[in-house]
Amino acid sequence: MRNLKLIIEYDGTNYLGWQIQRQGPTIQGLIEEKLRFITNEEIHLIGSGRTDAGVHAIAQVANFKTNTSIDTNSLKRALNSLLPKDILIKKVEEAEEDFHARKHSKSKVYEYRILNKENPSVFLRQYSWHIPQRLNLVEMMRATEMLIGEHDFSSFRSSGSFTKTSVRRIIRAEWKRSQSGILRFEIEANGFLRQMVRAIVGTLVEVGRGRIDVQGFREILESKNRQKAGSTAPAHGLFLKEVKY
Amino acid sequence: MRNLKLIIEYDGTNYLGWQIQRQGPTIQGLIEEKLRFITNEEIHLIGSGRTDAGVHAIAQVANFKTNTSIDTNSLKRALNSLLPKDILIKKVEEAEEDFHARKHSKSKVYEYRILNKENPSVFLRQYSWHIPQRLNLVEMMRATEMLIGEHDFSSFRSSGSFTKTSVRRIIRAEWKRSQSGILRFEIEANGFLRQMVRAIVGTLVEVGRGRIDVQGFREILESKNRQKAGSTAPAHGLFLKEVKY
Repeated sequence: MRNLKLIIEYDGTNYLGWQIQRQGPTIQGLIEEKLRFITNEEIHLIGSGRTDAGVHAIAQVANFKTNTSIDTNSLKRALNSLLPKDILIKKVEEAEEDFHARKHSKSKVYEYRILNKENPSVFLRQYSWHIPQRLNLVEMMRATEMLIGEHDFSSFRSSGSFTKTSVRRIIRAEWKRSQSGILRFEIEANGFLRQMVRAIVGTLVEVGRGRIDVQGFREILESKNRQKAGSTAPAHGLFLKEVKY
Repeated sequence: MRNLKLIIEYDGTNYLGWQIQRQGPTIQGLIEEKLRFITNEEIHLIGSGRTDAGVHAIAQVANFKTNTSIDTNSLKRALNSLLPKDILIKKVEEAEEDFHARKHSKSKVYEYRILNKENPSVFLRQYSWHIPQRLNLVEMMRATEMLIGEHDFSSFRSSGSFTKTSVRRIIRAEWKRSQSGILRFEIEANGFLRQMVRAIVGTLVEVGRGRIDVQGFREILESKNRQKAGSTAPAHGLFLKEVKY
């Protein structure tokens, strides 16, 4: 049996997220549907992880087993011609027999975009969090440094999430100010808890607004108490950028 | 009577263009409707010019006469709270009594964006023309130089357009390759014929594909015959960038 790996870009605006749900359209649901149509097989698509409603992906990774003989390029073309324009299959490739998009991922990179200027932008309205108030980026960067390394991230997890451990290792976390008022936060970790990036960004923005200082940020992290942290940043600023294996 | 000037940004994706039409929503139509609601007056909004269905604006300019006493900041806030998120009033300011957004414009700047790489982008799908084939930018730049100065642009006008003269003066026209495969064409003129930028871009792309050479481009311009030029580039790559007075 072949094991095929997909690299997928999507605009999450019109979806209930990655994972199949009865209530409405999801990325996984749509791609599985088109794969079934093309292969005439029952397909189970395994993503590297879920993304929430409204979250985007620049390079989500998924795999599925199939007996189809279609070559990878033809499959890519067929999928892209059937899928709506806000989901793009960037690559289809043969994977090792045992490759598992979720279990084998070593780290993930997320990017969060904030539009930090007075006026919002009609073009970025679905791809960034607009914050008109001036943010103190220097303080945000200092607080960000506290995140590097292994920590229990209970303070930055969604209340409805239950996993064995809430310890994760942050490999890299950095802010960049790019052209025209866009702040980009890039964070790489061996794994993320549910809504962890958005809770971190929401709390770092409180630091940028001067409502929490760097010491306060450290205390929130060490408290392991979600109640202490800032609010969750909106989904539409978040991008799954890379999954490393 | 006050004469107020608006600077407007819009995502043209969901509109039939600037100018009011019975068949569906337009930018002018929506802004006039909200202005009537706010001022309780009959409002006639004058734009610097039409933009076609699907064309975007970074800074469209418009003006209208009113007796309302609302200050400009409050009017801006009121409009933005009533308008959908794909139309943004960037500025409201008092204009000279005789200021006319269309008649007084000295020049306009348009930008056209081409995504020139193999894969399309879900995030740029409504804001660029995706051309996967490699384009010869050097040849396109050489052909672009022919446009500078005063010419009869009959070869690059939409067949359904009738204006007194088809002579326009191109002040500036240049291509820039920016990050991640985006080609930006910026063109400034004292005025544009209907679909002129899109016809020029469509023909320059033919040059980039090697189907027309620089001499051929010059001949098309000099022929004053629309049949000779390339096809019209899609609306969704075009942005009205600036109107100068």
